[in-house]
Amino acid sequence: MKRTLILISLFLISLNLSYGQTPNLCDAVDPFIGTEGGGNTFPGATLPFGMVKLGPDCGDKRSNSGYVPGAAAHGFSHTHVSGTGGGAKYGNILVMPFTGRIEPGKMASAMDNERASPGYFSVGLKAYQIKAELTVSHSVGFHQYTYRGNEEQGILIDAGSFLGEGHCCGEAQELIGSEIRIISDTHIEGYSRVRGGWNKGGAYTVYFAALFDTPAGHYGTWKGDAIEPGTAAAFDSGEKTGAYFRFAGQSGKTVKVKVGISYISTGKALANIQREIPHWDFEKVQEAAVRQWNEALSAIRIEGASEDRRKVFYSALYHTMLMPTDRTGENPYWKSSEPYYDDYYAIWDTYRATNPLLTLIHPEREAAIVRSLVDIYQHEGYMPDSRSGNHTGRTQGGSNCDMVIADAFLKGLPGIDYEKAYDAMVTNAEIPPGGDQQMEGRGGANAYIELGYVPAEYEPADEGPTLHTPKLYDRAGTRTVEYAANDWAIALVAKGLGKEADYEKYRQRASNWANLWRRVESEGATGFIWPRRKDGSWVEDFHVKKGGSWGNFFYEADSWEYSFNVPQDVNALIDSCGGRDAFLARLDVFFRNGHYQVSNEPSFFTPCLYTYAGRPDKTNATVRDIIRKHYTVERDGIPGNDDAGSMSAWAVFNLMGFYPNAGQDVYLITAPHFEKLVIDRGKGRVVEVVAHGLSDKNIYIKSARLNGAPLERAWFRHNEIAEGGKLEFFMDDEPGGFGKEIRPPSLSGG
Amino acid sequence: MKRTLILISLFLISLNLSYGQTPNLCDAVDPFIGTEGGGNTFPGATLPFGMVKLGPDCGDKRSNSGYVPGAAAHGFSHTHVSGTGGGAKYGNILVMPFTGRIEPGKMASAMDNERASPGYFSVGLKAYQIKAELTVSHSVGFHQYTYRGNEEQGILIDAGSFLGEGHCCGEAQELIGSEIRIISDTHIEGYSRVRGGWNKGGAYTVYFAALFDTPAGHYGTWKGDAIEPGTAAAFDSGEKTGAYFRFAGQSGKTVKVKVGISYISTGKALANIQREIPHWDFEKVQEAAVRQWNEALSAIRIEGASEDRRKVFYSALYHTMLMPTDRTGENPYWKSSEPYYDDYYAIWDTYRATNPLLTLIHPEREAAIVRSLVDIYQHEGYMPDSRSGNHTGRTQGGSNCDMVIADAFLKGLPGIDYEKAYDAMVTNAEIPPGGDQQMEGRGGANAYIELGYVPAEYEPADEGPTLHTPKLYDRAGTRTVEYAANDWAIALVAKGLGKEADYEKYRQRASNWANLWRRVESEGATGFIWPRRKDGSWVEDFHVKKGGSWGNFFYEADSWEYSFNVPQDVNALIDSCGGRDAFLARLDVFFRNGHYQVSNEPSFFTPCLYTYAGRPDKTNATVRDIIRKHYTVERDGIPGNDDAGSMSAWAVFNLMGFYPNAGQDVYLITAPHFEKLVIDRGKGRVVEVVAHGLSDKNIYIKSARLNGAPLERAWFRHNEIAEGGKLEFFMDDEPGGFGKEIRPPSLSGG
Repeated sequence: MKRTLILISLFLISLNLSYGQTPNLCDAVDPFIGTEGGGNTFPGATLPFGMVKLGPDCGDKRSNSGYVPGAAAHGFSHTHVSGTGGGAKYGNILVMPFTGRIEPGKMASAMDNERASPGYFSVGLKAYQIKAELTVSHSVGFHQYTYRGNEEQGILIDAGSFLGEGHCCGEAQELIGSEIRIISDTHIEGYSRVRGGWNKGGAYTVYFAALFDTPAGHYGTWKGDAIEPGTAAAFDSGEKTGAYFRFAGQSGKTVKVKVGISYISTGKALANIQREIPHWDFEKVQEAAVRQWNEALSAIRIEGASEDRRKVFYSALYHTMLMPTDRTGENPYWKSSEPYYDDYYAIWDTYRATNPLLTLIHPEREAAIVRSLVDIYQHEGYMPDSRSGNHTGRTQGGSNCDMVIADAFLKGLPGIDYEKAYDAMVTNAEIPPGGDQQMEGRGGANAYIELGYVPAEYEPADEGPTLHTPKLYDRAGTRTVEYAANDWAIALVAKGLGKEADYEKYRQRASNWANLWRRVESEGATGFIWPRRKDGSWVEDFHVKKGGSWGNFFYEADSWEYSFNVPQDVNALIDSCGGRDAFLARLDVFFRNGHYQVSNEPSFFTPCLYTYAGRPDKTNATVRDIIRKHYTVERDGIPGNDDAGSMSAWAVFNLMGFYPNAGQDVYLITAPHFEKLVIDRGKGRVVEVVAHGLSDKNIYIKSARLNGAPLERAWFRHNEIAEGGKLEFFMDDEPGGFGKEIRPPSLSGG
Repeated sequence: MKRTLILISLFLISLNLSYGQTPNLCDAVDPFIGTEGGGNTFPGATLPFGMVKLGPDCGDKRSNSGYVPGAAAHGFSHTHVSGTGGGAKYGNILVMPFTGRIEPGKMASAMDNERASPGYFSVGLKAYQIKAELTVSHSVGFHQYTYRGNEEQGILIDAGSFLGEGHCCGEAQELIGSEIRIISDTHIEGYSRVRGGWNKGGAYTVYFAALFDTPAGHYGTWKGDAIEPGTAAAFDSGEKTGAYFRFAGQSGKTVKVKVGISYISTGKALANIQREIPHWDFEKVQEAAVRQWNEALSAIRIEGASEDRRKVFYSALYHTMLMPTDRTGENPYWKSSEPYYDDYYAIWDTYRATNPLLTLIHPEREAAIVRSLVDIYQHEGYMPDSRSGNHTGRTQGGSNCDMVIADAFLKGLPGIDYEKAYDAMVTNAEIPPGGDQQMEGRGGANAYIELGYVPAEYEPADEGPTLHTPKLYDRAGTRTVEYAANDWAIALVAKGLGKEADYEKYRQRASNWANLWRRVESEGATGFIWPRRKDGSWVEDFHVKKGGSWGNFFYEADSWEYSFNVPQDVNALIDSCGGRDAFLARLDVFFRNGHYQVSNEPSFFTPCLYTYAGRPDKTNATVRDIIRKHYTVERDGIPGNDDAGSMSAWAVFNLMGFYPNAGQDVYLITAPHFEKLVIDRGKGRVVEVVAHGLSDKNIYIKSARLNGAPLERAWFRHNEIAEGGKLEFFMDDEPGGFGKEIRPPSLSGG
C-alpha cells in the first residue's frame, strides 16, 4: 500500500512536471539579479518579449536599463532594453507621481522597499511618500500610485525624457522632438521622437495614450523650462514637452494610470489600451502577466535543485525572454504579413546561446524571430546584426544573423522562407555595405573575397563615411574569423537547399581563418590569428594580448580568445595548434593563465573545445567551475553584462548539461546540474534529461543513454531529441572514459 | 522737350525694371503650360519652393502631378511634385466638397471653368454644383467652396488617398496606414503614411490639421469601406481612413477650410496654420501668394518681348521654382541648424540648368539648397541624386550632386561648408553604396576605380539586393561618362581648396570616358561610347542607337547622345571624333538625322558643342530653332516631361541668350531672344543683357561687349557678371566671325 502510494505520488509529480498544472515558476525568478556588477539587466515589469518594459529611470539617466541601485528615480518610463552597453537606448514616456511643487526634470525621489517579480515592480518614492506599483500587458503600462501624504497630489508625463543624453562617442540619444496634449481630465496623449544611442540608429517615435481613473482637478503642460498651467497642449517644435494632472490631496488615495504605447500613432496607443486592458483591475493585469511568464518559463521544469540554484536557473531563463521585442503590428515603415521584432541587441551576442535556446524551448517564437529577420532583409536589403528603435546598426563582427538562419534551418524550424533567407545570407557574403560599414552586412567583404582575409590596412570608412580618418585594422581579425564561420553556416544551408556549387564555394571560404594564422609562440602555444597586410606580409607591431574594440584588429577580445574561434572546424584548429596534446595544453594555459573572459561571447564556446580534443570531462569540470564562481542569486550574480540575455542563456544550457555549437545541429554535453529536468517543446515534444546519482561529488559522467540506447558520444544532434526523447546521464565522482573516442563533427572530418 | 520726356520715360522704365515697383509678373504665368503632352507640370496652388502644393487628383490617380485634363477630380490634395515620371509620389490629405450621399473613394466629379495662376487654382465641380477655390501659404492649403445647390452639403477629408497606387515595376506608392480624428465641429486632424513611388522611398508621414469656418451639423469617419456616422475617430490599423462634416444645405453658401500640413505632427500642422494664416480672409492669402511669386519672378525682368514669348518665359521661370521643396523645420529625422529641402527629383535632371539658374538669380536660395544636400550627407552618409518623401533614392546615372557642389563653389555661393561638401563628393567617388545600388553614391565605383570604366558585366545588385538576377550592362555607359564628368567637378573643388594631390587624381579620372571610346563608325561619324568587359574586350552585340533605361548600358538615351556627353573636356572629345571638321559634321548629322532628343537631359548641352568647335553661330541657330519649335504657350508647350523644371530652366537660359556648362564657372553665349533683360541677383548685383537690333531677321551676333569692353568670346565666366554688369549683343542678319577664335575652356587646354 505504501509502495503504491509512493508510485502514485511519483506518477503525479511526473504528470505535474510533464503535462499537469503549471507550478508557479515566477516565484523562482528574481529580476534584480544582474542589476549590479555591470549586468545591466532590466528589473521592471514586462511580459515575455513584451513591447512595454516599464521601470524606473534613475540617477543621471545614463544607465542602460534605466535602473540604478541606490539612485533617485525620475519616474517610470515604458521602453527599455536589458543587458546592453554603450550609449543607452529608449527610456521614453516617463510617468512620475508627486506631491507639491512641479519642476520638470527635477522631480527625482530616492527609492525604498523595491520589489520586483515577473510582470510586477513596486517601490516607495521617499520624497513624496508615494507607493508606486507597476504591471503591464504587452503594449500597456499599468501604474498604481498610492499617496501617503496630504500635500497636493499630482502625476506628470514627461514626453521629453529619455536615457543616454550627452553620452560620448556618438552614442548619445538625442531628442528630435516631442508633443503632448491633454484630451480630457482623464486622458493625455503625445509622443517622443529620439535618435541615436549605442546602435547610432535613426529617429524612432514612441506614441502614447494615458488614461487616468481619477479626473484631474487642474492641469498644465510645459515646453522646455516653461510651465503653462491651464494650457492643454504643447506642439512639437523640437523641444522637451510634458503635461501634469493635479488631484485634490487625500492621504491613502490611489490613482491608477494606464499608458498605452505604440510606434504607429496615438490612436493606435489608445486602441492598444482598449484591446488589452479595458478595465481598471490592477491585480487582474498582474495575474495575467504571471500566467504568461509561467507558461513561458515552464518550457523547462527542473527537479532536485537547491532553492538558490533554482533561482539562478529561472532568473537566467527569464532573462533570455526579454529581447528581442515583439513589435508585430507596430512597424511604421512597411506593411507585412510577417512578424516584426525589434531590439536585436546584438545578434553577435545572442546567436551563440540565446537563439539556439529559443529554438529548443520555444520553436514557434524563434521561427517568428527568424521570419522577422528575413522580412527586414526583404524591405531594407540586409538582415541586421543589431537593431533597435526600428533601425539597423551596429555590426559588431561578422554577419552572424547567418548563424541564426543556419541554426533554424538545420533544426527544421517551420514557416520560414529559407530560399529568401538564403538570399539574405548570400547578400551578406557578396555585397559589402555602403558608406557606413558599421550598419549592416560585411565590411571589407570585397577584400575578404579577393584575399581570403580582411587585410590589416582595411578600413577606409569605419567611423562613418568620412575619408579623413582611415583606420588601420578595424576589426579585421574578428571579421575574418567570424566571416569564415558565417561562410560555413551558408555552406550548410546551401547544401540543404541542394545548391551544391554554392556549398562548395562557401565550404572553401569557411577555412579562411587559416589565412591569418601565423606561427608565433606565446606561453607555450604556437599559432595565433595575426594582422596581415594586403600584400600578404604580417604586421610586426602586434601582440597576442592586444585586445580592442571599434577600430582595433580584434573586437572585445584578444588573439588568445579569437584564435580559438573556429567552431566550424575545430579539427583543423587542433592540427594548426600542433595536434591534440598541444591543443589540450593550450586550453589549460588559456583557463589557468586568465585568458578566458567569462563575460565575453568569443569565449562562450571555448570550454567545449576540450570535448573536440577527446576530454569532455575537462569541458564538464571547466563549465561547472565557471558556473559555481560566476552565477549566483546576488544582484551581481551575472558575470558582467548580460548582453540581451546571452550570459543567462549560456548558463541555462550549461546548467541543463549541454551547449549548442550555434549554426550547426550539434549540442555538446557539458555539465549536468539537475537530477531531472523536462523540456517541453510544445505539441507533445517532451525531452527529459536525467542525471542519475548526481551529487556534489558525483559530477562526472560515467555513461549516458539517449532514448534508451547507450550514448558513447559527448555530443548529440538536434534531430535526436527534436520530437522528444530522454537523455540519461549516470554520474560518477571521477572522470572516466565517457565520450572520449567519438569526436564531435567538424568541417575537416574526424 | 520731347527728347527730354523720352529720356525721362526711359529712365523711369529703367528704374522700374531695376529698382522700382515690381510689375505683376504673375499675369505672365500660365501654370497649365506643360500639363498636357507629357510635361507633367503641377497646375495647382503653391508658393516658390512651397511645402503645400494644393491641386486636384484626377482620373485613376496615377498622374504624376495629380492633374489630368478632362478627367474627374476626386478632390484636392496637399502634396505634389511637378514634372516627374514613373510611379507617382504624394497626393496626400485629399479634401473634397460634395452634396448628397457619401461613398469614400467614389466622390469624383467632372471639372469645368478651370483657372490657375501663381498661388491660386479654381474649378467647378459639375457633379455637385460647387465652385472650388484654392490658395496657399507655405505650409497651409486654404480651401473656399461655394455651393450652388441646396442638397445636403458636406466636405470630406480622405487620409487614405494618394497617387500611384498599384503602379508597376516596384514604383507604386503603398499605404502603410492612416488615422483621423474629429476634434470638434470645426476641427479634424490625422495623418497619412505612405511608402514607395518612383524613388522607391521609405515611409513618410504627412500630418494635417483642418479648421473649418462653419461648424458641422453632423459628422462621421470611415475605415476601409465602413462608414461610421457619429464616430469621431478611426485609429491606424493599416487601413484607409477618412472623416466628413455635413452642413445644412443653403444655395450660395461658402465654406472655408484651412488645412495645415506637417511632416512632424498634427500639433505642428495646427501650429503652422496659426502662424501662417491666423484669419479667414481668402483674398489676403491669395494676395500674399501673388506678392511672393512676383518677388521671385522679378529676379529676371524682360523687355521687348511679345505677349506669348513673355508668357513662355515667365511660365518657364515659374516652373523652375516649384522644386525642391523647402521643408526647413519639418525634418522628422534629425535636428539641424541647416536648411532642409526635399524633392530632389532628380539632380540628374536639375544640375544642368535649374541649379545654375538659381545660383544666378536666387543665390541665397541655391546656397540653402546646397547646405541641405551637405546636411543630408552629414546625417545619412551620402548626398542624394534623388530624394522625395524624406528618403533618398534613386540614382539615375552619376553622382551629379557633385556638379551642384562644384557649381556653387566655383561661383562663390556663401555660407556653405565646402570642406564637408568636398568630403561628400569624395565619398561618392570612393565608397560605393551597399546592397541597393540605385539608392545613393556611385554603383560600380570599385570597378570604375580599378579599371577606369564601369565594365559591361557590372551590375550584380541593381534591382535591389538579390543576387539571382544579375544584369548585364546596368547603366555602365551612362555611369562611366558621368562619373568622369563628376570627377572633373571634384578636381575643380579640390584645386580651389588647395588639395593639389586630389586635384591631380580626379583630373586624371576625368578622362575615363575615353576608356569606353571605341572606333566604330555610324552615319559617317567615327568613335562611340561602347560597352566593354572587365578583361578589356568590347561587347560586339551592341548598336549606337541602342538606348535604354534601368538595366541597360545607357540610361534614357543612346550612344549618339552619350558620346557627346563630355562637358569637362570637349577639346579631347573633338580630337577623338577626328578633329574640328569631323566634329562639326557629326553635330550636323546629330541634329539633322533625329538623334537629338529635345526632351532629354543628356542632349541639353549638345547645341553648345558647336561653340567649342568654333561655330557659336550654329549653337545660336540650333537653340533658336529648338525654342521656336518646342516651347509655346499651349498646354503641351513644354517638350516632354518638365523634369522638375529642367526643360523650363533650359528655356529660361537660352531665351536670355546664354547657357551654363554646369559644374564649371562658364556660360556659353547661345541665342538672345529679348531686346533687354535685367537679372537682379539681389544685394545690388544687377546684370543687364541687351540685344541691340534684335529682330526676326537679326538673330546672329555680330559683336558683343561685356561691361563696356569688347567681348571677342562666345562665352564668359561667372565672376565677370557676379557682382553685376552689362552684356551687350549687336545683332545682324547673318552669321559672322563673332566668337569663333577664342574657344571655351576645356580640361585638355585649347
